[in-house]
Amino acid sequence: MSGRKLLMGMVGGGRDAFIGGVHRAAAHLDGQVNLVAGCFSSDPEKARLSAEDFFVAADRSYSSYEEMAEKEASLPVGERIDFVSIVTPNFLHAPVAKVFLKKGIHVICDKPMTTTLAEAKELKKVADESAALFFLTHNYTGYPMVKEARERVRKGELGRILKVVSEYPQGWLLDSIESEGQKQASWRTNPKKAGASCCIGDIGTHAENLGHYITGLEIESLCAEFTSFVEGRELEDDGNLLIRYKGGAKGVLYASQISAGEENNLSIRIYGTEGSLTWYQEHPNELKFIPKGQPAQILRRGNDYLSEEAQRFTRIPFGHPEAFLEAFANLYLEAFRAIRDRLDGKEPEQPYDIPGMKDGVYGMAFIEAAVQSAASNEKWTPFPDLA
Amino acid sequence: MSGRKLLMGMVGGGRDAFIGGVHRAAAHLDGQVNLVAGCFSSDPEKARLSAEDFFVAADRSYSSYEEMAEKEASLPVGERIDFVSIVTPNFLHAPVAKVFLKKGIHVICDKPMTTTLAEAKELKKVADESAALFFLTHNYTGYPMVKEARERVRKGELGRILKVVSEYPQGWLLDSIESEGQKQASWRTNPKKAGASCCIGDIGTHAENLGHYITGLEIESLCAEFTSFVEGRELEDDGNLLIRYKGGAKGVLYASQISAGEENNLSIRIYGTEGSLTWYQEHPNELKFIPKGQPAQILRRGNDYLSEEAQRFTRIPFGHPEAFLEAFANLYLEAFRAIRDRLDGKEPEQPYDIPGMKDGVYGMAFIEAAVQSAASNEKWTPFPDLA
Amino acid sequence: MSGRKLLMGMVGGGRDAFIGGVHRAAAHLDGQVNLVAGCFSSDPEKARLSAEDFFVAADRSYSSYEEMAEKEASLPVGERIDFVSIVTPNFLHAPVAKVFLKKGIHVICDKPMTTTLAEAKELKKVADESAALFFLTHNYTGYPMVKEARERVRKGELGRILKVVSEYPQGWLLDSIESEGQKQASWRTNPKKAGASCCIGDIGTHAENLGHYITGLEIESLCAEFTSFVEGRELEDDGNLLIRYKGGAKGVLYASQISAGEENNLSIRIYGTEGSLTWYQEHPNELKFIPKGQPAQILRRGNDYLSEEAQRFTRIPFGHPEAFLEAFANLYLEAFRAIRDRLDGKEPEQPYDIPGMKDGVYGMAFIEAAVQSAASNEKWTPFPDLA
Amino acid sequence: MSGRKLLMGMVGGGRDAFIGGVHRAAAHLDGQVNLVAGCFSSDPEKARLSAEDFFVAADRSYSSYEEMAEKEASLPVGERIDFVSIVTPNFLHAPVAKVFLKKGIHVICDKPMTTTLAEAKELKKVADESAALFFLTHNYTGYPMVKEARERVRKGELGRILKVVSEYPQGWLLDSIESEGQKQASWRTNPKKAGASCCIGDIGTHAENLGHYITGLEIESLCAEFTSFVEGRELEDDGNLLIRYKGGAKGVLYASQISAGEENNLSIRIYGTEGSLTWYQEHPNELKFIPKGQPAQILRRGNDYLSEEAQRFTRIPFGHPEAFLEAFANLYLEAFRAIRDRLDGKEPEQPYDIPGMKDGVYGMAFIEAAVQSAASNEKWTPFPDLA
Repeated sequence: MSGRKLLMGMVGGGRDAFIGGVHRAAAHLDGQVNLVAGCFSSDPEKARLSAEDFFVAADRSYSSYEEMAEKEASLPVGERIDFVSIVTPNFLHAPVAKVFLKKGIHVICDKPMTTTLAEAKELKKVADESAALFFLTHNYTGYPMVKEARERVRKGELGRILKVVSEYPQGWLLDSIESEGQKQASWRTNPKKAGASCCIGDIGTHAENLGHYITGLEIESLCAEFTSFVEGRELEDDGNLLIRYKGGAKGVLYASQISAGEENNLSIRIYGTEGSLTWYQEHPNELKFIPKGQPAQILRRGNDYLSEEAQRFTRIPFGHPEAFLEAFANLYLEAFRAIRDRLDGKEPEQPYDIPGMKDGVYGMAFIEAAVQSAASNEKWTPFPDLA
Repeated sequence: MSGRKLLMGMVGGGRDAFIGGVHRAAAHLDGQVNLVAGCFSSDPEKARLSAEDFFVAADRSYSSYEEMAEKEASLPVGERIDFVSIVTPNFLHAPVAKVFLKKGIHVICDKPMTTTLAEAKELKKVADESAALFFLTHNYTGYPMVKEARERVRKGELGRILKVVSEYPQGWLLDSIESEGQKQASWRTNPKKAGASCCIGDIGTHAENLGHYITGLEIESLCAEFTSFVEGRELEDDGNLLIRYKGGAKGVLYASQISAGEENNLSIRIYGTEGSLTWYQEHPNELKFIPKGQPAQILRRGNDYLSEEAQRFTRIPFGHPEAFLEAFANLYLEAFRAIRDRLDGKEPEQPYDIPGMKDGVYGMAFIEAAVQSAASNEKWTPFPDLA
Repeated sequence: MSGRKLLMGMVGGGRDAFIGGVHRAAAHLDGQVNLVAGCFSSDPEKARLSAEDFFVAADRSYSSYEEMAEKEASLPVGERIDFVSIVTPNFLHAPVAKVFLKKGIHVICDKPMTTTLAEAKELKKVADESAALFFLTHNYTGYPMVKEARERVRKGELGRILKVVSEYPQGWLLDSIESEGQKQASWRTNPKKAGASCCIGDIGTHAENLGHYITGLEIESLCAEFTSFVEGRELEDDGNLLIRYKGGAKGVLYASQISAGEENNLSIRIYGTEGSLTWYQEHPNELKFIPKGQPAQILRRGNDYLSEEAQRFTRIPFGHPEAFLEAFANLYLEAFRAIRDRLDGKEPEQPYDIPGMKDGVYGMAFIEAAVQSAASNEKWTPFPDLA
Repeated sequence: MSGRKLLMGMVGGGRDAFIGGVHRAAAHLDGQVNLVAGCFSSDPEKARLSAEDFFVAADRSYSSYEEMAEKEASLPVGERIDFVSIVTPNFLHAPVAKVFLKKGIHVICDKPMTTTLAEAKELKKVADESAALFFLTHNYTGYPMVKEARERVRKGELGRILKVVSEYPQGWLLDSIESEGQKQASWRTNPKKAGASCCIGDIGTHAENLGHYITGLEIESLCAEFTSFVEGRELEDDGNLLIRYKGGAKGVLYASQISAGEENNLSIRIYGTEGSLTWYQEHPNELKFIPKGQPAQILRRGNDYLSEEAQRFTRIPFGHPEAFLEAFANLYLEAFRAIRDRLDGKEPEQPYDIPGMKDGVYGMAFIEAAVQSAASNEKWTPFPDLA
């Protein structure tokens, strides 16, 4: 440990914003950070009040992210922010990230990384040229039981993977709440702010990333059906996909924002030649593992029978449930470890288990292929070559 | 009531056969039937032993179904069988059914009805010309909570249906058990006995029928991906479909026989503009109903708050679970009611709630469209016109 | 097999009665029985209509059980009933059973066996002196997963049993429906017809029997609290017990009929030095087994990994749920096996797995001890010595 | 808001301690606190390393809590700790709390409050005479769905409460891990450090508090059975209670630490004349509410249909589960609000929803009554008069 709390900045995430609050809680949970600077809102009054809420000094509450990057970078290490969390609508991710990366300030960015694949590749170039680190908060990979799932797959307990079923139904966009001014709905359904996809870009990409994280499978081609059920909505609010993975596995993936009664019901089922795994995000402390021909096993967070990787990201004993914020905080913990290692000039003791630039580019390729397929009469749309 | 037990015959279903035993239990459960004749096996010794097991007199244990139809039809009503249950492998359904229909003996036939759509249409002609009734055991529609689901949709409690997700994963064909002589696996994976589809024909058709029964939605076009994961297997053991329904609703339907750890995990989720319904066959006494913006309601069999239709098919009080055989028996109860009405020359008091010829033809059209789509590079295969 | 269907009689269980219908369905399910005689109701019109419903000939629809026993016993074997099912209110169990036992006709009797322990002991004497068999339908022991639980305990997989928690909450008597004429409520809350206990006598005894069946544990002493929550009700509608078992294990057992929203929520949890078992009657196809320090295992009916005892009582494959009636029918199957063995003069191939006289006496001792404890200021009431 | 982060001290809770880490995470989660002082361990090296881990300056890492109280109290407000969290073994709670209360420093204390009722009353006197606030972390009351349960009871949705069933099974003390040096087990099973009860004092008191919080019911008398299943263990590791509440409701409460396979399975079921509520701590985002005769409703955290009280303690949207640490942090949030109000000289806008001295005294009375009953032959032990 580098002997002091890390200093955090934030772009976006003012009062009442959803994901900004999540990032702050996740960052604070383990007592390793002080939030000392921010550009919380384009509305100056809201920015000021937000800074007060978050105990950020007035002189480090900035009105533009460019100014923030400029000024913070000019402060000495130990006073300047060690990293910035970007929690704006999608279209600002890349511009903001570039500015900070160029100033050598580490970036933790919400997903999807950009609004197009081209923009993602461009951002990658900037990151490649920067000494600063870039992390992407595909937060569902932070759950200990998701890590356990990956370990089980890696150890071969499922044999060869045959099929992946990932679902992500929500219902919050069933009505046209964007036309009533609901803020998040407004930008997510707006192609200028969200990019070319709403539902798949927002949550389908989480479902894809989850399967990719656990199985390592890469998509060969896909077949997508997009629907915009709500009148007047430009982007899709429901997307269903058939997937062919390299090597012969098959996938069904769907995401929906118009499924009445569904809250945030991300789930994944992975079937192999030797067994299967099932995980539900809304009951994240459990992972069902069924070895072929044997009773289902309910693996539960915090037990000694779990892998070291699942244990490493567990804070409290079994039966004391951890949940969304703890999983999100697990990404921050890995980012902190990486940042501290940089500060201390240390090599990592083990790889940092946190998504980054590669996942961001892959995710944008997935979104773009899905958008393209949805508009196509071809049955199978090939996944873009990222090499 | 016509004052006596109905007399039942059976073709197929000898000792150890799966579905024959199910039909017998379902038929017997309510004490309305005597099994008095059968052609239980092509193996004479097995046929004889089976007759003994089932308390069928030796002289009514037939060695061919043609002989059985002939002889039984020659007996006077009250002595001859009132109906025959056909529980053979698929390829025999049509030939056997035709013989009995032509003799004026009512038929209860297992699904899928035939092996091709053409054969289905042909059988329909025979049935149309016969005075005898024809029933098809899409048994999952016999569950009271499935009937409740249909009633809720009919009453508009879900609003306009937007999306249907139906899944039917099993794992029993994950290994090549047909090559080890497992009897059911052998014929189901054999195109000569099962028809052009294994997985979709056997269980995908149940999933489709279930959605059709509950929602009334008709398929406009579909996009199917079939896989045969087990080496050397001719027919698919896994099928994934995207569906476009007439009127704009969308569907995801998949069936699998290679999903390790899955038993008979048929489920359906129906999303409308006003609410959603979820039902799992393995927990059949519960139906989850979520009115938009309200708490999920767990509707349970046997309660006064259920529709008359759900109550009509309930035998025992809430909390005393009913299950697969009772649901199957509900189809038999409706068939019995129809047969007794015929015997008594009565008009039905209410429509018979049991699948029949129309469902059989529709089901074969679904299977054929799925097979065709799976072999096609076109994204969308239109559903055959059945008019 | 003795080559013919068994002939069944019934006392009680006319139209609309609950438990009579259950017994008939359970008896018929496996196609081994014909119901040929009955004394279905003390109301002659209802008796007549019931006989018609059940396809019983008018001349074997009796107006008194004494007459029925007399006349049936005078018929030759193969024509007379092979056994009688007694499904009356409790106070008639013993008188009816005695008459049939004395005539040498086998008896299948609903529980609780009698209304007092003294009456139970008296009935036992009659049974001991009779050549006829006596069975008691503690039906929850008929579930395959309950049998699996017993096998796991027997094999030592739980180690030494430390604690048993059995619960049986229902809610159907929360209101004074007996004062509105609900028939079952009327006799169950009436000490003259039900005996000295309502809730513990009706359902607490099931919970006790279930634990006894699975673990073999015998009660040393108990401490009971009875409450009659509904004004004017003479018998308890809620009973809570602490139990000391012989050998040091401890128990918590409660039953309730005033628990709003509960249907028939019998459950049992058994904790030993090496693991635990949990079973819920409303989800009877699953048994949770947790070996100490290992993941919970969800054992499911019909799988190869189950004991022979659980397999023997399974009709259909895994994932095709069986439920209450099938479990009840399993008791009938064992009774049929015993009766057929008698008819054939055969020794049992294996013990008949069905409760009988011993369980009946034990159950009445339990009820009586609970009633006595509830009225006492002593903390512990010893279990009666039955030796 | 008082414009600055609150300054926190801690007694106990060094590296590897369980509950100390929980308190730190709960305190940090919302970004409102800096941990600036501590007396983390009686072992100086461990204390030093702990201070480093937690970014506490060496000169505020104290070797005695008396010294800590002394020195901190001498610092000016804004520099000195605003409050201290006491997370030692039970026997130190009172001595430490007294010292800080006497210095006017607010106290957040883990439960049970003391080791005897007499000590609790004594501490109460000290608190009554102090200007400082005292909070007790009966953390399970911090869950939003527990607050919802209380609101539903308050609004009369359950009618008159008839029965409360609270269970708290764990399995971690099934083996004699105290004899292998497991630290927490060692002090919890040691009467000198834990007080006169292990199981009921540690977790039974949580179960009792939960019921008391939700229903407001007060105990009239109780009947307890304590068992120490593990050889050589002085205190009970399993406790079962029957409870009579004032006003006629009845209760069953049990806690266990020897229940194999149980993790932290606290649950509560509350039955009233109009409906029932069920809550499981291991699935804390759901509360089952069954209005009499209606379908069960699954109430889920974060939905608009919940009470303001449940919403006030919710951080993130429905479907993004919150869990143990968030619930614990909810107590801290209320304590922070109270402390800030004091700092600002403000009256509370609404009552602070957090347990305190009264709950601590009541809890100790419960433990003492249970201990006394367990040793008694009297059936009912009256609850101590606390007036």
